[in-house]
Amino acid sequence: MEKYHFTYDDIHHTAKDISDRVTASGYEPDVIVAIGSGGFIPARIIRTFLAKPILAVGVAYYDQEDNPTEEPRKVQWIEEAERKLHGKRILLVDEIDDSRSTLEYCIRELLRHHPAEIAVAVLHNKEKEKKGAIPSEVKRYYAGRDIEDRWVVYPWDAQDIDAHNAEAGRGRKA
Amino acid sequence: MEKYHFTYDDIHHTAKDISDRVTASGYEPDVIVAIGSGGFIPARIIRTFLAKPILAVGVAYYDQEDNPTEEPRKVQWIEEAERKLHGKRILLVDEIDDSRSTLEYCIRELLRHHPAEIAVAVLHNKEKEKKGAIPSEVKRYYAGRDIEDRWVVYPWDAQDIDAHNAEAGRGRKA
Repeated sequence: MEKYHFTYDDIHHTAKDISDRVTASGYEPDVIVAIGSGGFIPARIIRTFLAKPILAVGVAYYDQEDNPTEEPRKVQWIEEAERKLHGKRILLVDEIDDSRSTLEYCIRELLRHHPAEIAVAVLHNKEKEKKGAIPSEVKRYYAGRDIEDRWVVYPWDAQDIDAHNAEAGRGRKA
Repeated sequence: MEKYHFTYDDIHHTAKDISDRVTASGYEPDVIVAIGSGGFIPARIIRTFLAKPILAVGVAYYDQEDNPTEEPRKVQWIEEAERKLHGKRILLVDEIDDSRSTLEYCIRELLRHHPAEIAVAVLHNKEKEKKGAIPSEVKRYYAGRDIEDRWVVYPWDAQDIDAHNAEAGRGRKA
């Protein structure tokens, strides 16, 4: 099955599109929360359009001894979270909504700090059966693109960006 | 004076080049510390080549009321920093070494947690008189490129990425 290859410019366009839709929907976040490390690049681009500060959180699916884990584990969370997030409108950003587990985990953890609202933005949502669920407190969900359940190769994961771009170009012509 | 316009692919190539030099120099970081928000994108690309986790820190030059400040202020720092950084080899990443103030501030704060070593990597170093200084504890400093003291426009700051790329192309031909 063909993989998706997105270029950086694709990602930039998608992040701008998401930002425009966030604004058009009337949502005005106070803070962007980036889920690391996949959310770092989309969050940073979205920041250009929404002009809000970014807080980063990190979750991993491996333990301290590098063994894979079923459940996510916090590798970085927000310090003094109460003070920073209480009553705030959050835009939670990640690159992809795949199984939805990471999103659910992060939303549930953030909800404990009583934000005014949490909205979710992802570059890509895979149309598939999801393991996790978006908690009902979340009323706004922005996916840059709904995509099929295929492997996604992001430009920042490219060992060779020129080869990656060539792949992306081939996929476009096909 | 002509501004520098870098494309995402330029940034990717520069981040790969830095990573190769870090490896060739024999430095093996345990953790990448990204200075937000400018360091997020280079740090995420460097992670592809060095395969280490990223911790994010945020400093800002404005206060809680959005007034500009002379000195940086922490907007996010590393939780349980002692446990995470004590005895670790850090690669501190930012996009640019301009006045050097942010780098000096972050290095001094990180040194308080007694890492084994701190190395610094930036995409671009402006060749100019610096306000800050790299503390003598730092023995390794990697700049992707030394550049003149001109305005730098990064792709992630582009309101219009196609116009940005066109500018970058014009700069290249000039």
